[in-house]
Amino acid sequence: MDTIVIPAGHGRAFRVAAGRRVRIETPSGQQSADFFAFCADDPTEFLSPHRSWMPTRALHPRVGDVFLSRKRRPMATLVEDGADGVHDLLIAPCDPIRYEQFGVPRHRSCIGNLREAMAAIGLEPPEYALTVNFFTATTVDDGYMFRTPSAPVARPGAYVALEALTDLVCAVSSCPYDLTGPGWAINAPGGLTEIVVDLL
Amino acid sequence: MDTIVIPAGHGRAFRVAAGRRVRIETPSGQQSADFFAFCADDPTEFLSPHRSWMPTRALHPRVGDVFLSRKRRPMATLVEDGADGVHDLLIAPCDPIRYEQFGVPRHRSCIGNLREAMAAIGLEPPEYALTVNFFTATTVDDGYMFRTPSAPVARPGAYVALEALTDLVCAVSSCPYDLTGPGWAINAPGGLTEIVVDLL
Repeated sequence: MDTIVIPAGHGRAFRVAAGRRVRIETPSGQQSADFFAFCADDPTEFLSPHRSWMPTRALHPRVGDVFLSRKRRPMATLVEDGADGVHDLLIAPCDPIRYEQFGVPRHRSCIGNLREAMAAIGLEPPEYALTVNFFTATTVDDGYMFRTPSAPVARPGAYVALEALTDLVCAVSSCPYDLTGPGWAINAPGGLTEIVVDLL
Repeated sequence: MDTIVIPAGHGRAFRVAAGRRVRIETPSGQQSADFFAFCADDPTEFLSPHRSWMPTRALHPRVGDVFLSRKRRPMATLVEDGADGVHDLLIAPCDPIRYEQFGVPRHRSCIGNLREAMAAIGLEPPEYALTVNFFTATTVDDGYMFRTPSAPVARPGAYVALEALTDLVCAVSSCPYDLTGPGWAINAPGGLTEIVVDLL
């Protein structure tokens, strides 16, 4: 088993062969893990939240749900959920443009983390891929998404396990969002924490 | 004023200069109009539902909401809603792969309509763009999307108006989905109908 410890606010990329499993954990809890996936034989074919929720109609992934590429290719199955469903498919990963809009240019971002992580394994990601946001608490009701202050968040040690359905290149970002916007807390108020990835 | 009548189940593409308005109508009601938009100076920069709903948190667009590109560039504002909010940002436009999965290969699709429409004006669209689905009734509740049988649908003559915020290439598809899946009616049960576009 290979273990990758992703420092708080950073990202790492790795390959997962078809049939292999990957486990992603927030040891301290309430730290969003932005999960990117690309088909190894076509890195422009990335995971698409829209295509993934069309067959399931579920905006929050559940055990057994399959993540599809933008060409509707099955990429991975969520095989274990040790986070009680606290996952999100709606939030676009943060990027340098978003932080400029927030007035904090040069802040680390999930898209920046993706680029760094892919470069470290000799790849360049397609621009502006989307993500599955594990351990991210969003509520959708009446056509709006938000975080209910009383809603459950991911506890320390919360985890998921995925099984690859085709050869993948994956990246995980410990989401560096540490701003306090009105009613929009992504990560734990105490600060960013690490994410641990095990290749099973 | 230029009027484009889009035959039932087909698509048309057209340019909209910054500051110009476009009006889209379902004369017979309950016919989804899949709206694609691309930045004229970079056709790979297309409208992104995910980036659009981040500032608004609204999964159904409302008057005043701005549609953003995948690079978060403001593309268009919804300036009039004569359809009582019956619009969707969650459904991925149908494509040839989807109809193969449904067992009806070679069925017309919104992505096929996009390709035909763009080719007619000498352009090739990026693969697998996403859409704003005007006159499409979806409900989102408790993390699921579906159509409540009793939910309102777009009435005959329902329309929207958009104002371009940058030079755009747009395409509108009269969604050719006419299958009857379990609990998933996109268009009117009586059959597909035309969509009328006015460039104001």
